Amino acid sequence: MSGHEIAYQAYVRLVEKRLEDSMNALARASSPYAEPLVQAMRYSLLAGGKRLRPVLLLSAYAVFGQDLSQPLPFAAGLEMIHTYSLIHDDLPCMDDDALRRGLPTNHVVFGEAMALLAGDALLNLAFEQMSASGHPRAIKALHAIAKRCGSLGMIAGQTADISLSHQAPDREKARYIHLHKTADLFTAALEAGLILANAPLPALNAGERYARHLGIAFQIVDDLLDLRGDVGVLGKETHKDQELGKITWPSLVGEAQSQQDAKAEIALAVQAAEELEGPAGFLGELALKTLNRVQ
Amino acid sequence: MSGHEIAYQAYVRLVEKRLEDSMNALARASSPYAEPLVQAMRYSLLAGGKRLRPVLLLSAYAVFGQDLSQPLPFAAGLEMIHTYSLIHDDLPCMDDDALRRGLPTNHVVFGEAMALLAGDALLNLAFEQMSASGHPRAIKALHAIAKRCGSLGMIAGQTADISLSHQAPDREKARYIHLHKTADLFTAALEAGLILANAPLPALNAGERYARHLGIAFQIVDDLLDLRGDVGVLGKETHKDQELGKITWPSLVGEAQSQQDAKAEIALAVQAAEELEGPAGFLGELALKTLNRVQ
Repeated sequence: MSGHEIAYQAYVRLVEKRLEDSMNALARASSPYAEPLVQAMRYSLLAGGKRLRPVLLLSAYAVFGQDLSQPLPFAAGLEMIHTYSLIHDDLPCMDDDALRRGLPTNHVVFGEAMALLAGDALLNLAFEQMSASGHPRAIKALHAIAKRCGSLGMIAGQTADISLSHQAPDREKARYIHLHKTADLFTAALEAGLILANAPLPALNAGERYARHLGIAFQIVDDLLDLRGDVGVLGKETHKDQELGKITWPSLVGEAQSQQDAKAEIALAVQAAEELEGPAGFLGELALKTLNRVQ
Repeated sequence: MSGHEIAYQAYVRLVEKRLEDSMNALARASSPYAEPLVQAMRYSLLAGGKRLRPVLLLSAYAVFGQDLSQPLPFAAGLEMIHTYSLIHDDLPCMDDDALRRGLPTNHVVFGEAMALLAGDALLNLAFEQMSASGHPRAIKALHAIAKRCGSLGMIAGQTADISLSHQAPDREKARYIHLHKTADLFTAALEAGLILANAPLPALNAGERYARHLGIAFQIVDDLLDLRGDVGVLGKETHKDQELGKITWPSLVGEAQSQQDAKAEIALAVQAAEELEGPAGFLGELALKTLNRVQ
């Protein structure tokens, strides 16, 4: 394993520990009457996953900051937000997915009502934990995350993804969906990490560009994986996009061109990463790996 | 109209104006691709209602503070949280309600997917706006609200309300549901208003007791209205509790005793209000009116 791979695993361990601690603390404080909620929250939050967004937040912080316990509540909060969005996306009224991270989706196990409430509760818990961090720039970082995840950010992307399906696709629509549904959470990670580390303005600018290009490339690869992918490796159903009439990049420009476009976005991400952290840093290498991801 | 009634209307106008401004700003900043989301958010947020929770927040602030523009983002945020909880509660997988505030429920008009996302977006927008307020105690007030609205607060109450339905009812279960599903939002209002006004600890303590007793009385009266109420006046379906096998106070102790119990809770709320604001103040009178509310 390279040094960067070892660092990735170390970040993931920090995040997993924090998420487990949060769920254990909740279970201890909770009434038996609310047990189904806590179980449903725990099920999806601790189901593994790449933990890419919190790793981005921690590694962006690490460019300028030392003490990783400082950004950890925000990294965990961002993963809670990501997880709530997946639980709600999987509901029958949305994408109606039965499989996620290799396990039955939340509503399949706990029912729709509990999946709905578990998603709501994870979004709420993210803000609860970020606001309890005691960090001097907590409110600024929390605000950056709220803005990117809300009605002008991720949820606008989810809306377009649903409401534009079965419509004539074009690049502008696809780009809008990718930018908001996917890249905005990456941008939230970079912004929050850099704000907490008190990074200078040019770094914030480079971080925002890095996240945007990485997010778009990530979604193009995601669309390709849905098209070609293996359920066993991906841990979620494939060929869903076509079934749901979703606008995807490969459906617009073909598979070969999609691969080229993802590569071009990654080159721009690597360039921004170099401005931020110098050559061959963690964020740059992470971007390069995105091109070859299989899940 | 009494001075207190005039004050109530003035608080409501402030809140309505702020909510309208928020929705207009969102509509201006939003892409046409996300228009269904903004429409669905606006529909439920601007559908009127008593605005009781934001009025509680503003009037608690007014006991110690002067400038009402300071707590306004938090009052509006709390109403956004209340509205999201109603949209999600009304969904087919929850209470499956077709009528709310005299209008078809959100999912009836916009479909389940958009109602789900509009609810998510209103919860998110609440935190976005509270964290943009610039108030020196914003993070503390935001945290108080997040805690009361989350997995140990309101959502725990919603969970119990759903998961304990059709079970043998008892007073402990009913009390738990009333405390969390209903009273916790009232408590959030008092806590946030008093924190923002930098109220002393004994006032916070009295405010918390006031909100708890008021909230429990409010829910008992709500249960009575569901039992006896008039759809035309209430603006929502009646006799839903029985249909859904919900645990209610009247189903446990009967209607006459419920009325007595609500009265006793209101007496305790008035006592706490007097500690907070002196005799015959706004909060005390508001509590007394709750007993006679018809919607």
